[in-house]
Amino acid sequence: MLELRLVQGSLLKKVLEAIKDLVNDANFDCSATGFSLQAMDSSHVALVALLLRSEGFEHYRCDRNISMGINLNNMSKMLRCAGNDDIITIKADDGSDTVTFMFESPTQDKISDFEMKLMDIDSEHLGIPEAEYHAIVRMPSAEFARICKDLASIGDTVVISVTKEGVKFSTRGDIGTANIVLRQNTTVDKPEEATIIEMNEPVSLTFALRYMNSFTKATSLSNTVTISLSSELPVVVEYKIAEMGYIRFYLAPKIEEDEDETKPQV
Amino acid sequence: MLELRLVQGSLLKKVLEAIKDLVNDANFDCSATGFSLQAMDSSHVALVALLLRSEGFEHYRCDRNISMGINLNNMSKMLRCAGNDDIITIKADDGSDTVTFMFESPTQDKISDFEMKLMDIDSEHLGIPEAEYHAIVRMPSAEFARICKDLASIGDTVVISVTKEGVKFSTRGDIGTANIVLRQNTTVDKPEEATIIEMNEPVSLTFALRYMNSFTKATSLSNTVTISLSSELPVVVEYKIAEMGYIRFYLAPKIEEDEDETKPQV
Amino acid sequence: MLELRLVQGSLLKKVLEAIKDLVNDANFDCSATGFSLQAMDSSHVALVALLLRSEGFEHYRCDRNISMGINLNNMSKMLRCAGNDDIITIKADDGSDTVTFMFESPTQDKISDFEMKLMDIDSEHLGIPEAEYHAIVRMPSAEFARICKDLASIGDTVVISVTKEGVKFSTRGDIGTANIVLRQNTTVDKPEEATIIEMNEPVSLTFALRYMNSFTKATSLSNTVTISLSSELPVVVEYKIAEMGYIRFYLAPKIEEDEDETKPQV
Repeated sequence: MLELRLVQGSLLKKVLEAIKDLVNDANFDCSATGFSLQAMDSSHVALVALLLRSEGFEHYRCDRNISMGINLNNMSKMLRCAGNDDIITIKADDGSDTVTFMFESPTQDKISDFEMKLMDIDSEHLGIPEAEYHAIVRMPSAEFARICKDLASIGDTVVISVTKEGVKFSTRGDIGTANIVLRQNTTVDKPEEATIIEMNEPVSLTFALRYMNSFTKATSLSNTVTISLSSELPVVVEYKIAEMGYIRFYLAPKIEEDEDETKPQV
Repeated sequence: MLELRLVQGSLLKKVLEAIKDLVNDANFDCSATGFSLQAMDSSHVALVALLLRSEGFEHYRCDRNISMGINLNNMSKMLRCAGNDDIITIKADDGSDTVTFMFESPTQDKISDFEMKLMDIDSEHLGIPEAEYHAIVRMPSAEFARICKDLASIGDTVVISVTKEGVKFSTRGDIGTANIVLRQNTTVDKPEEATIIEMNEPVSLTFALRYMNSFTKATSLSNTVTISLSSELPVVVEYKIAEMGYIRFYLAPKIEEDEDETKPQV
Repeated sequence: MLELRLVQGSLLKKVLEAIKDLVNDANFDCSATGFSLQAMDSSHVALVALLLRSEGFEHYRCDRNISMGINLNNMSKMLRCAGNDDIITIKADDGSDTVTFMFESPTQDKISDFEMKLMDIDSEHLGIPEAEYHAIVRMPSAEFARICKDLASIGDTVVISVTKEGVKFSTRGDIGTANIVLRQNTTVDKPEEATIIEMNEPVSLTFALRYMNSFTKATSLSNTVTISLSSELPVVVEYKIAEMGYIRFYLAPKIEEDEDETKPQV
């Protein structure tokens, strides 16, 4: 039997909003460690990894490891029916082919239960080793979302270049070119407004803006985002989920033989 | 001659927004009692009844009973041109085929008059007798609107079941099932937040969510909604209009021979 | 070389939003006097004239008069990437076929530069002589925008009639007629809420609402709008840009042989 009670139910609502456009169907894996998901996007280009650790739940009962195949769009429809202050409980009986989401209003005057069918989904779980990155940028998540949105009005790809002084986001399109430079800045009033660069060596990599803009749907989960870059690895765009875990997006850089061919590649 | 001056003109704006999508053309009936309307929706399934009592108007002159045939969408277009704080006066000369809406801004610096053609509309006025209901639920109107909207994302019909403990709203659809239970709750800080159930006998009835969601367009008229249920009568969904009258929606329950056929009936 | 630094960059963003739907391509003219534009709308009915005086810029360097042909929609896309508090600098090298817009955030932590190609645009510069008008109306710009929007829901043209007592805006359409009268009003708490009429002789002129509604996209640039009317001249709808200049829209009145033919003329 599975019974996971999450007091801050809005977190689960936000998680679904963050990934439902990227991934159609996926397995949620429940174990003693926590509630997790790993899935490729529908075009098999980007990877999402979610972890909500068991300690973050008010009540966490998972008698045996189970994998629940879920259509994320349908799950999102159900979670949208939960109030932002509601407590959400996820329940599944052993061997059952359904999962139930229960929503309790803070005053306990309104109790909803939504039941949905589970699906059989083939999936392979990729081991993602911890890796060394050439550069790690931590910056306000809203600023990153703004930059990706702005650049997408000009071009289709973004070149992210990191030096000790700052990080540069560049694009080019039919109407012209754009460069946005953020300087390293650690002396801010609020720590979440800092832009912090850890760099082992300079790096400059190109990514499809379409995916970056999809990842930024997780912006409401965290005030900051961490972007880990290496020329030999997919970029990791990570949003921490307060005291519970994270949502991480992985995307391989585009290989550019000639800079002028940037645009048609997308 | 007809001249009705309504200081809180926004009420009339809200009334039109509440009914214009349900009813295309209707007769507004003016008498010494008040300004009223009774009309079937365009598919002849639901009935709307509106009453604005003469005492609620600052000035109410109606020399003889008249019936004004009006296209509600056009009337709504004109009322949208009134400011929310404007005083609205409805004027019609005897025998005239037009009606004039005059809007006065609170400072009297802006005076608008909008004139529209009246129409001849055949209509039969149904006598609606006062009736005994099995159960009457009074609840916050915004909560009722939220429930109808949420359930419509899952299914097409709602089963409303009332017991002494509470009222349950249920639906089922392709993606699963949903049950929302509101408990009777009279000990709230603000009386309009109460959920109050008067019950003579338990009742469980099925309605098309499409109509319920249409009725909830009246939500801005009142903080509370009253739902009167009986297995032999159409449900009445009533929004009181402060110190003036009401808007009531009537809808016959769906007869279900087999629960599994709920969905295709809509 | 051209280098114009505008501390209140949001002004330039608003200017572009105000004119980009009316004019596709236009020449921005830079001289020692200021940064200006004069262009006909794409259907050659209305004229826009913009002036941002050099004194309004923090830094204004314009070595020689130049004319920069720009697609306004593309320029608007780039300016939308500037924050509302950003400082905007416009730069162009002598003989270059590109212009650069630089955006600096207030904290200087984010510096963006957007470069776009210039175009060759044929344009004739009309001399617009100062003229005497029969009547000049100054009124709150938001009220003018509201009136034009409201009337457009009823008809296609507006008759603006000015007398000493006030200004009347009228329209007629399939669903009826509308008249909105604003009284002269100079005794208001805030000067920008006044409606002030300077009249030499009464005037009544007809204009296409489509253009008027397009002009009101400049509403965010100024709290007030000035409408200058004469039976022999195009109307001038002017929005002052605080301490820098103005944006003026010119539109010829419609000649009405028969009032009943008002509608099909548009």
